[in-house]
Amino acid sequence: MSKPPIDFYFDFVSPYGYFGSTQIEAIAARHGRGVDWRPVLIGVTVLQIMGMKPLTETPLKKDYLRRDAPRMARLLGVPFRFHDRKGGNSLAASRAFLWLKARDAALAKRFAHGVYARLWTQGQDITDAQSVAEVAVPLGVDRDELLAAVASPQAKQALKDAVDLAVAKGVFGVPTFIVDGEPIWGSDRLWMLEHWLKHESWDAVQAPRSSPE
Amino acid sequence: MSKPPIDFYFDFVSPYGYFGSTQIEAIAARHGRGVDWRPVLIGVTVLQIMGMKPLTETPLKKDYLRRDAPRMARLLGVPFRFHDRKGGNSLAASRAFLWLKARDAALAKRFAHGVYARLWTQGQDITDAQSVAEVAVPLGVDRDELLAAVASPQAKQALKDAVDLAVAKGVFGVPTFIVDGEPIWGSDRLWMLEHWLKHESWDAVQAPRSSPE
Repeated sequence: MSKPPIDFYFDFVSPYGYFGSTQIEAIAARHGRGVDWRPVLIGVTVLQIMGMKPLTETPLKKDYLRRDAPRMARLLGVPFRFHDRKGGNSLAASRAFLWLKARDAALAKRFAHGVYARLWTQGQDITDAQSVAEVAVPLGVDRDELLAAVASPQAKQALKDAVDLAVAKGVFGVPTFIVDGEPIWGSDRLWMLEHWLKHESWDAVQAPRSSPE
Repeated sequence: MSKPPIDFYFDFVSPYGYFGSTQIEAIAARHGRGVDWRPVLIGVTVLQIMGMKPLTETPLKKDYLRRDAPRMARLLGVPFRFHDRKGGNSLAASRAFLWLKARDAALAKRFAHGVYARLWTQGQDITDAQSVAEVAVPLGVDRDELLAAVASPQAKQALKDAVDLAVAKGVFGVPTFIVDGEPIWGSDRLWMLEHWLKHESWDAVQAPRSSPE
């Protein structure tokens, strides 16, 4: 009997969500788990529900983010660059993701990697539906069909439902991984996720504070 | 020539600061470093400067904290329990710490461990100066001398200066470790601190995502 998948909550606008997206499939595969990718909107969870400001507008933390994201990328060995776009959002991309996921989950993941790469390695916009189509079309998706789907009331409702469900499960920031009912927040906690996947317990087998090298 | 110490920024009111306090000396020692303990007030950095609410009053995150802190304690193998105290602060304890540190840094660290244990393993108050004295007196500190010092304008100014300096260095949350100019925030990032101490670089020697067991 196979083990339940890891729920991976992500938002395309988050660099840490991007970092998580580059690691989660390999981590899950090493432990015989699948990954269920679930978009969430931190504009709803963090800004509206928690009443916080965006990271990029929070004194002190915004400077830390600027310094931290590039070194996280180096540690993980993945490409990364900051963009200076303001006011973008992941609504269209997340709706497109859910629409694709309902038809082909593997295709939806390839699309998600493409959206993340577009924003966080190429620095290109992902906000408008046309830019989202730029990612999907090379994967074999019909442009007009995608644009119609993203604009549909069904797609809007599906994303709203997805966010509501995430909040009901206690998700606030991204990435959040939920495995066997355990929520783990942050791409700086991949070690903790791996600990659970190996031991299915929080008891220390050995102090988890060392890095593996 | 010995390497510069790790600056360890802590606040007694933070459970994650407590977790950091239980690990940092051993981590530093493994890499031939000392530790410079520096109190900061998250009531100033997080609440005033960043404009955030306390963790315990932030929707969603407060529930995560309740779940997360006990499992972090299990992972680290340290005692822990939540207290239900409201409105406490670390002013007196932090002033006492700085006063002790100016006389005997090793004594000040023993005192800090005692304050953390009082709040986060015994669930007892650390807010009023008398409760702070309860920790210091068994370590050989004169009660009246301590109480007079904590109430002095010099002690208040010393803590204010310490917080100002921390903010100038970009510290916001606790624990924050600064080593060789690299700030590392969070007791979930001890792996990252160890990576730096080993390699003094952010380049991945091996993917740092695995836990060591």
